[in-house]
Amino acid sequence: MALVVQKYGGSSVADAGCIKRVAQRIVATKKAGNDVVVVVSAMGDTTDELIDLAEQVSPLPPGRELDMLLTAGERISMALLAMAIANLGHEARSFTGSQAGVITDGSHGKARIIDVTPGRIRSALDTGSIAIVAGFQGVSQDSKDITTLGRGGSDTTAVALAAALDADVCEIYTDVDGIFTADPRIVPTSRRVPRISYEEMLEMAACGAKILHLRCVEYARRYGIPIHVRSSFSQKEGTWVVDTIEGTAMEQAIISGVAHDRSEAKITVVGVPDKVGEAAAIFGVLANTEVNIDMIVQNVSAASTGRTDISFTLPEADGQTAMAALNKVKEQVGFESMRYDDQIGKVSLIGAGMRSHPGVTAKFFGAIADAGVNIEMISTSEIRISVIVNQDDVDGAVAAAHAAFDLDSEQVEAVVYGGTGR
Amino acid sequence: MALVVQKYGGSSVADAGCIKRVAQRIVATKKAGNDVVVVVSAMGDTTDELIDLAEQVSPLPPGRELDMLLTAGERISMALLAMAIANLGHEARSFTGSQAGVITDGSHGKARIIDVTPGRIRSALDTGSIAIVAGFQGVSQDSKDITTLGRGGSDTTAVALAAALDADVCEIYTDVDGIFTADPRIVPTSRRVPRISYEEMLEMAACGAKILHLRCVEYARRYGIPIHVRSSFSQKEGTWVVDTIEGTAMEQAIISGVAHDRSEAKITVVGVPDKVGEAAAIFGVLANTEVNIDMIVQNVSAASTGRTDISFTLPEADGQTAMAALNKVKEQVGFESMRYDDQIGKVSLIGAGMRSHPGVTAKFFGAIADAGVNIEMISTSEIRISVIVNQDDVDGAVAAAHAAFDLDSEQVEAVVYGGTGR
Repeated sequence: MALVVQKYGGSSVADAGCIKRVAQRIVATKKAGNDVVVVVSAMGDTTDELIDLAEQVSPLPPGRELDMLLTAGERISMALLAMAIANLGHEARSFTGSQAGVITDGSHGKARIIDVTPGRIRSALDTGSIAIVAGFQGVSQDSKDITTLGRGGSDTTAVALAAALDADVCEIYTDVDGIFTADPRIVPTSRRVPRISYEEMLEMAACGAKILHLRCVEYARRYGIPIHVRSSFSQKEGTWVVDTIEGTAMEQAIISGVAHDRSEAKITVVGVPDKVGEAAAIFGVLANTEVNIDMIVQNVSAASTGRTDISFTLPEADGQTAMAALNKVKEQVGFESMRYDDQIGKVSLIGAGMRSHPGVTAKFFGAIADAGVNIEMISTSEIRISVIVNQDDVDGAVAAAHAAFDLDSEQVEAVVYGGTGR
Repeated sequence: MALVVQKYGGSSVADAGCIKRVAQRIVATKKAGNDVVVVVSAMGDTTDELIDLAEQVSPLPPGRELDMLLTAGERISMALLAMAIANLGHEARSFTGSQAGVITDGSHGKARIIDVTPGRIRSALDTGSIAIVAGFQGVSQDSKDITTLGRGGSDTTAVALAAALDADVCEIYTDVDGIFTADPRIVPTSRRVPRISYEEMLEMAACGAKILHLRCVEYARRYGIPIHVRSSFSQKEGTWVVDTIEGTAMEQAIISGVAHDRSEAKITVVGVPDKVGEAAAIFGVLANTEVNIDMIVQNVSAASTGRTDISFTLPEADGQTAMAALNKVKEQVGFESMRYDDQIGKVSLIGAGMRSHPGVTAKFFGAIADAGVNIEMISTSEIRISVIVNQDDVDGAVAAAHAAFDLDSEQVEAVVYGGTGR
């Protein structure tokens, strides 16, 4: 008998009809001889509606109370799901994050999981019940206050429970059939990736593929939990995210896919004195504002001026914060000016085989050049090459790279490529 | 410094505007130098909407899951209320029933409070916070599952917390100005009762006055908690429900008010053999169906037949259940037939002074007779006289009794006389 953890997002439980359909899928998994633990998000628009209510009573609600409010969302969906399962003749018991033993730190709205003690879940399974657990929430270790985990929280709850329960697989249900070699809206011939390693998936997630959150993949890699990303709207196999698959992957395709991200902006700090500690000063200022920096490029210093330019990318949402912080230290650091550009896009080629195939980089740049696209910045890791291009050139660069690495399939699969919020 | 427990019902927190107004009232109480604990119901229609969702996924949802679902309602209202208070510059912390230490038995949907251990509430008060507690809910002692308390549950939560915290007063906010001498919709000249004893209030509640639930008054009497019933829409004093007030009440008015109830039906069992154990047999059958019997009248046996009639009243909702149960034992008990009448109403005169004023009963019956109303059944306690009349005669009987005992005021107070569900 296997232990399966399934996670259903908000769109999978958007209304009573969806909940009943999900209940049937859960019961089918149980009937197939598995122990089943289900992690569920709030129904469709519930979270937005609750946030709207909060805004009506307070412009800046305290984090503790906002978490208390928002956790009502999963409470509703999980109870309804348990009822729908009971109505199919199977015993189901719903548990809040706190009841399921999801222990977190006290950072309301973005709490981190410290420990998982799923004693009540285990007991429910032992009596033959299906356990339904509220995603996205936990209880703080110190204050015993209710917390929420922030973006990607429900996926992370599922993987964390799978790890604590030593589950055989963590199935993440979403509204697409899995991970694709590129966004099918840009590349209609993109293919579903049947298997991908944690490392590649991390790079995909970090480079804009919104299906799985970085955080959940990091957790799964740390504990070796196989993730099966699949659609709640079909019975198809999805994408397995597993430990290294180099042995088999080498034989087939060394490139997993092409990811893109339009949500970043680029800041160039112009005329930075070329001396020790300047970069540290700039990025120290940015770290204090809690802005996440992505790519960094420092030009070769011009010998005549003794000055250099430093460019970096960051989430567009943090752009103004970063500009303001840097402006404050302009005199102190001694740079000349700044340039801000939010009309950029990042295109990334990801593949575990890259490290042993030196021709990959050249082929990637060549394909982008052939598409007439100018590269503004470059960043590489052992299993990824990313370039920054003009935002309007993203689609062309993605399609060109996808074709160059023979990722196109002959059959177009009909999917919607979208992200989940929680 | 006094400790005040306030309870706000669903209509007092129906929307964001209501919540903000309630927050101001709470802050005013805090600013006046009190420690404040607030018990809150779910917003307006939330409970009905959640029940509607439950019915969409299951015709008979398990009690455990229905409780899990419904408790989302108070979670939402209490978090919003805490935010609204924080927005006024005061610290507020919301607590679920479980967090507030409301320990119950395991009867989902109608749990009884076993113990209250409000350690976290006390800590919140000690740090100067206003504590907001979800009404209507608790946690079962044995299974640690979430429970709901059933009808009157939020009022009972408030009184139970007031008792456990040794509060100075429990204020129950509703949409009327207090307890009235009769339903103002029937008797426009009815007056607000400034003070009433627990015993009289219990009789009022049992006889159809819907402002306070029997259960909450019973709890308050047991622990000697003064209840102040008042309107959340005005600053007026309401009605104080307190320990015996005979000393003062005797001087002023011995009759507290006239209550009525149209929700009962009458069953008459005709031709019951007049021998030992017959009544026990009939009411034993009814007890097994968990039907609550109210008034019982047995006619004097007719010597010629050796048979008698037994009439009793019960909630109209239980009428068919009771008829079916009795029909099954018709042969065994040996009665001749049954009559069912749901066109009845109960009119009750309540007053602590009644026991020492023998003329009260005669005056009450006289007033009803003068109004041309026929009395079908009579039942009395030390502080109450109830009569069953035709449903169409209820208004006339109430008005006649109200006038006969000089309860009419000269000034008509504008109120809406309604009940609260939870």
